[in-house]
This record gives sequence, C-alpha cells and structure tokens, in this order.
Amino acid sequence: MTDKYMQFANSTLGSKLVGLVGLPRPPVLERYRPDVKAPLIKGSIVLGSAGNGRLLEAVVGVLAAIKANVLAHGEAPDWIGAANQAGLMTGRFVPPARGGKQGERIKALVFDASRINESSQLVALHRFFHDTVRSLDRCGRVIILGRPPESCSTPRQITAQRALEGMTRSLGKEIRRGCTAQLVYVAEGAEGNIESTLRFLLSPRSAYVSAQVVRIAGNATPFPVADWLQPLAGQTALVTGVSRGIGASIAEVLARDGAKVICVDVPQAEAELAAVARKLDGIALPLDVTAADAPQKMVAAAQAQGGIDIIVHNAGITRDKTIANMKQELWDLVINVNLSAQERINDALLAAEAIKRNGRIVCVSSISGIAGNLGQTNYAVSKAGVIGMVNSMSVSPLLRERGITINAVAPGFIETQMTDAIPFTIRTAARLMNSMNQGGQPIDVAETIAWFACPASTGISGNVVRVCGQSLIGA
Amino acid sequence: MTDKYMQFANSTLGSKLVGLVGLPRPPVLERYRPDVKAPLIKGSIVLGSAGNGRLLEAVVGVLAAIKANVLAHGEAPDWIGAANQAGLMTGRFVPPARGGKQGERIKALVFDASRINESSQLVALHRFFHDTVRSLDRCGRVIILGRPPESCSTPRQITAQRALEGMTRSLGKEIRRGCTAQLVYVAEGAEGNIESTLRFLLSPRSAYVSAQVVRIAGNATPFPVADWLQPLAGQTALVTGVSRGIGASIAEVLARDGAKVICVDVPQAEAELAAVARKLDGIALPLDVTAADAPQKMVAAAQAQGGIDIIVHNAGITRDKTIANMKQELWDLVINVNLSAQERINDALLAAEAIKRNGRIVCVSSISGIAGNLGQTNYAVSKAGVIGMVNSMSVSPLLRERGITINAVAPGFIETQMTDAIPFTIRTAARLMNSMNQGGQPIDVAETIAWFACPASTGISGNVVRVCGQSLIGA
Repeated sequence: MTDKYMQFANSTLGSKLVGLVGLPRPPVLERYRPDVKAPLIKGSIVLGSAGNGRLLEAVVGVLAAIKANVLAHGEAPDWIGAANQAGLMTGRFVPPARGGKQGERIKALVFDASRINESSQLVALHRFFHDTVRSLDRCGRVIILGRPPESCSTPRQITAQRALEGMTRSLGKEIRRGCTAQLVYVAEGAEGNIESTLRFLLSPRSAYVSAQVVRIAGNATPFPVADWLQPLAGQTALVTGVSRGIGASIAEVLARDGAKVICVDVPQAEAELAAVARKLDGIALPLDVTAADAPQKMVAAAQAQGGIDIIVHNAGITRDKTIANMKQELWDLVINVNLSAQERINDALLAAEAIKRNGRIVCVSSISGIAGNLGQTNYAVSKAGVIGMVNSMSVSPLLRERGITINAVAPGFIETQMTDAIPFTIRTAARLMNSMNQGGQPIDVAETIAWFACPASTGISGNVVRVCGQSLIGA
Repeated sequence: MTDKYMQFANSTLGSKLVGLVGLPRPPVLERYRPDVKAPLIKGSIVLGSAGNGRLLEAVVGVLAAIKANVLAHGEAPDWIGAANQAGLMTGRFVPPARGGKQGERIKALVFDASRINESSQLVALHRFFHDTVRSLDRCGRVIILGRPPESCSTPRQITAQRALEGMTRSLGKEIRRGCTAQLVYVAEGAEGNIESTLRFLLSPRSAYVSAQVVRIAGNATPFPVADWLQPLAGQTALVTGVSRGIGASIAEVLARDGAKVICVDVPQAEAELAAVARKLDGIALPLDVTAADAPQKMVAAAQAQGGIDIIVHNAGITRDKTIANMKQELWDLVINVNLSAQERINDALLAAEAIKRNGRIVCVSSISGIAGNLGQTNYAVSKAGVIGMVNSMSVSPLLRERGITINAVAPGFIETQMTDAIPFTIRTAARLMNSMNQGGQPIDVAETIAWFACPASTGISGNVVRVCGQSLIGA
C-alpha cells in the first residue's frame, strides 16, 4: 500500500534522477483533517464570471460561510459591491505580469460560466484562466460552474454549456502539481444546494478527484448542517464490506463525520469486522450480502436503530478471467455480489421504509465499469450495471418523494492490498497514467462518499463521480 | 502517414523481435472495397439470444438480405424455424471443445440481449460468448443488441441493459486480432431501421471502430436503398475541408458511394481543392467557412443543386498552447472554425430549407473533446461543443419534422500529415494505446461518416461515435 516510486521521486536524490530521465515527480497531495481552527481553504480564491453570472450570489454565500479570502477578477460586475458589504472581498486579482503582487498564494479559481449563451462567449474562459492559472498554488482547485445542458432552452446555449466539459478536462491535464479541475452544473432553482459540493471540491477532501462533471438539480430545501466538522452527527449509516481496504476507510470517515456505523462483512471476516466496529463505536453485522435472508437481516438491523440515513454498497469482488476461460460460477458470483445483491437490498430497505427521508444510497462502480477491462467481463458488467442502477433509481418517484438520493463513486487505481499484489512495473505504470501521477488512497474514495452522504447534498442524485486523479483511461 | 512500426512488426524478422520483447504486433485490418461479387461478410455468423429476443426477426431479415451464412447458438428458440424457411440457417454452432468442427471460420457473433430484464439474466452473455469467442476469426465482429436503457420501464431492466456496456467494452479489449465489439441499442418501433447499421458494423467498413454504443430510435419508415454498392446514388453532399487528409477521404468515399460532392476549402488551398473536385467529378467551392458571407454562399451552392442531402462539417484546425501561453486570437480562431461557423452554417441552411427532407448533418468531434487534452483547451472546448450541438439539434423539432439527422464522429489517432509531424516515440506510443495497436486511416473516419449519411440511417441521430480503435483514452 506504499508507493515506493513516489517516495523515491520526492527524495532529494530521487527527485533529481527522475527529472534527469524525464519521469514525472508525483506531487504530495494535501488531505483533509478536521480542525476547528484551520480554514477549509488555505489561501485566496479568485472569483470570476462571464457577465453577471447567475450563480455568483449562491457562491458568495458559501465563500462567506467558510470565511474565504476572495479576490475579484475582471471588470467589476454588480455583485462585487454586495460581496464587499458581506465582508468578503479584499481586492482585485491582478496578474503578476501586469503588476500584481508576486507570489500571491491563490488556492482556488472559481468561474461562473452560467451566463455563457453561445459559443462566441466562451472566450470569457480564456480571459479568466489565461490570467490566473499561473498563480494557482500547488494542490489548488479550479471550479467552473454552469447550467446543465439538458435543461437549457436553445441549441446554442446547450452547445456552449456542453463545451465547458472540454475546458475542465483540458485544464485538469494542464494544471498539474496536485491541482484539480471540476465542472459543476447547477440547475435553475438548485442554487441553494451547492454548499456541500463547494466545500468538498474546494477542500483537500477531494484530493484525488479531478476532471469530474457534477450535476446539482431540483429545488428541494437544503437541509441545514449545524456543524460542518460533524456533518453526519446524529445519523446512522450502514456500510458493506468494511473489514479492510476501502470499506474500512469509508466506515472510519463516516464515523469521523459523526455517523453511527453499522458495519457489514462476511462471517469469515468476523474478527476484522468486530475490530473495525469496536474502534468506531459502531455495530458489527456479520452477513453475506448474497444470502437469501441478507436483505431482511439488514432491514432488521436498520429498524433496530430507528431506520438508517445512509447505505453504502461497498462490498465487491473480482474474479478475473477472459470470457473464454471463465467458468459460469465466477460470472454468477461477481454479478450477484456486485450488483444483484444490491438491487435486492435496496428494494427490501425501501419497501420497509428502513431508509429515512432525505436518506442517501451510495454505490461503488469502477473505471472498469466505464471503460471495460481485459479479463473483467463479469466485473465490468456488474459495475456498468451499478451505473444503470444509479441512473434509473435516481429518477424513481419513490426516491424523489422521500428525498432519497442515489449516487456512485467510480474508483480508479487506489492503493490497497488488492492493487499491492500487482507486479511493480505494471503498478507503477498504472499509477503514473493520471493527472496526479500516483494512485489514490482509500480515504479519497471515502471522502467522496461522505460528500454524497452529507444531509446537505440534496439535489445531488444520479451522479457517477470518478475518484481516479483524472486517469487517462475512459470511454 | 505510414506506420513504420506496424510494417516492421509484421515483417518476418520484426514479428519475432517484437514477440521476444513483449511488444504488440498490430494486426493488418481488413478494409472495405465495393465489389458486386464479394459477400459483405466473408465467413459465418453465429447468432444467439437471451430468450426469444425481440430483435431477432429484424436481424434475420438483414442477414438474409446480405446472404450471410448463419449458425444458431444455444437451445432452439422459436425464430430458428422461420429463419430456416427463409433459407438462412445452415446449422447449429457447436464449440470445437464439444465436438464442433475445428477451424470453422466464424466472422461475426451477433447476440440479441433485448430480453434481458434483470441482472441475474445477464448470465446469458456468459453462455453465448464463453462458447463462441475462441472461434472468432481475425478482423471478426461482435454485435450485442439491446434496448436503450432510458426507454426501459423498470429500474431492474434499465440496470441490466446498461450493464451491456461493460460487456461490450471488455470484449473489445479481449478479442484482439483486429476484431471489434459494439453495442447497438434499438428502441421499440425502430427495428426496421437497423439495416444500414448492421451492414456498417458487420463489414470491414468499420475496421477502426470498436467498443462503441449506437442508439437507433424513432419509428420513421426506413428509406429504401436500391443498390447497397451505391447507397448515396442521386444524392448531393457538401463537405468542408476537403483539400487533404480526412476531408479528401470523406469526399472520395461519399463519391464512391454515389454522391455528387460540393467540395469546400479555404481559397489558399484552391489548387488542391480543384484537384479533388475534378477527380471526383464534383464541384469546387473555395471559401473560408468563417467568412461573414460563407453561410449564404453555401446556401446558394446547395440551392444550385436543388438542395443538398448531406453536409459534413469536417473543416477544423488546431492551435495548441497551454491556456497560460495562449493568445486570445488562437482561442477565437479555433472556436470560430471548429464550432461557431458550423452553427451559423447549419442555421442558414436550415432556414433556407437547403437541406432536403431525410437529410444528414455530420460533424467531426474528437477524443480531445471527450477527454480533454494538455495544450488544447481551445480545441477541446470546440470539440466538446460539437457534442453539445449534436445532442441539442438532434432533438430539435425542426430537424425531426424534416427527418434530418445529426451525428458526429470522434476520431482518435488517425494517420495524416498532421499526426506524421509528431515525434516517432510519442507517435508509436499513441498508436499502440488502443485495442488495434495502430493508428486509424482517414478512410475509417470517412466510412463512419458514410454510414451516418446513408439514407437508410433514419433514426440514427444524436450519436457520437468514436473512430479510435477503442483507444484507452477517455473520460
């Protein structure tokens, strides 16, 4: 689980050597530690907009809440006065090349592109990023905000808003040094629901998430979070596959964020499961998710807590063989654990109303489910199916009525015991094939799940977000 | 434009050397040559189905039309009798491992998955492909047919149909030797519209297209094609950027398929343009697509032919720089040529009704538009915008009313003068990073465009199909 190449490339000697032969030096990524005294963002944020952006008011509200130091870019639009009054603005951003302060520490660039209504107006992206991108600090953040193309009214507007994806993904590949770039589409009426997303994407919580497109929809009233250091306080989460690796990290992060965790894993892993549950002051529930009585046992466990707020379907297995060499048992096993069991469990929990209102279902897909993989027909089918499950259930009237969201993470190369078994050369190559030039950590997946699970993440449903450091691999 | 690595790796000595050091040996891909005497598919097709598939009748009709030799797989469903009566079936497929004929030349595997209604039924994929995939000949074809998930009625069905993507993309990476795998979603009522797509995907026309998802929708009456060796006979096409490379190939293929071609390129390339037009017995129309009067000149040229049936927006440029180093002129130029000009031209042609009923608009996007690229913010924004343009216009009432479709190809690494300028090592790496282990040829893009342009491709609208040999690179 240690990346020896990364350690070497960041040592005094190694750093020189990898530079000499032209190999990348993976940046050390900043990661989140809850700290009441530390600001969420350590540095200034430059805020810009194409015209008088529709999302600025909401953005300014969140930035004021996190006490961010905000600099304005470009000709002063109307909102700057209001922001100044809120005590938010400290000044204008002037590029060092035009006499601005040298070495000003810019930690995030936030650009509201919601007013871009046709392709010729896309030049506003050039104006903002051309000026600012050089000043972005290491592990900096870029967020472009737009309107969901599918909700726009004219073809020209749809085209221009869809074009933002090309900007985000290219920027992700240009900014390097641990910086990330994301595109957040906010539907009309959903402006009040952006706080949890901005907090996640601006902070080190999203260390290994880059070049993603997030959609925030709906006009549900945002659920208030009293304490952002404990956003899940008072909530109950059920997590499967927690005895090790990513699952253990998910349980830990949800507990850290305040949730009581019901920890599920197979009876064979009962000792490790008990250890995790004990450490987190949670509840151990040993069971095989594919067992006939598993859904009912999980319903009972949920009901014993007065219902659950969050379920994370993390349990998953691989049984790799090419299709020509794959016995049917291996197919059935993988589809059953990774997909069919989740369908049965969701249906049982929903039928029993064991998931509370404003509840959260979080699934785990995979890059293999998006791009396919040699020797993984069974796994890729199950993980592509998870995407279908998220798409279909997110629009189901039953979930909408109860305010229950469903989303998935799609991990790329994450450092676990599983990936540690891959031969060194292949592992190193896989680690380097992304914009972070390294594998992710289990906590990166867990933080992304915690963002979906947050009670304030109302309106975030049907999203599949990759945790892959912008892996080259895709479809 | 020659791939020296491929030539070397396929030579007697080179083949041994690359084998020794573990480098891939790129297969020589079969490509299409119109030939009245040759069958479209040289070898047998194995046909299978999950239950009594809803699409089999339509598939059998097309296979009979191309005089394919079809073998049935699995327990005999109802349709086998009917197919036998149509003179289609010659027998059952029995895997060599179970006593079937050794060395039987199987050129295509076609599987109807439309009846898969939930995840546990996905095992039908295992049964079919586990048995058959070893028998697939080089440059063989795999086609999985399903129902568009977004049109399915239950979450379980959506999930299972969406899961087919994982199968297709994994198979694409497993079958190698120049074989391709595709997923075709056919909406209810659109069964009659699959002929042009099956002909394209089964034949060598789709040599460099793999792991794609195609949607056939609508219940428009299929347009009859009298002669499939000249499917565009009597039609007029306008193609931009034809003086060289991919554009020249597009004009050639459309002319080969029977169309009269209006050839557009910038006045500076007038000599090459005239040469192409002369060779194809077409019309040369030198103009800059970004000129203020370009749309009206193109309308006039179209009207002089009594309207056009096809417009291909191929003209495109790159001006690569990182955003920090990019002058605004380079941004504006690329967005204008690759995106805004096309919007203006489409609007003018549609307003003047210069595109005939059942017309075709075909655009050129790019893998950079999907995945983004370092140093290509302008290009990626323009090409992502093209995807938005296709999405939005395909659902526009104006186009639907007139039966006009709009689609895009998204080329990967295609061998042209442009890519020939890339240094050898990077070029070789880029060529190998796809399931064909080689770059594509301009004709591969042209054939894909000719499929979209076919008058029988009714109901194929809003598709973005990559011509990339299943490049690893994606989003």
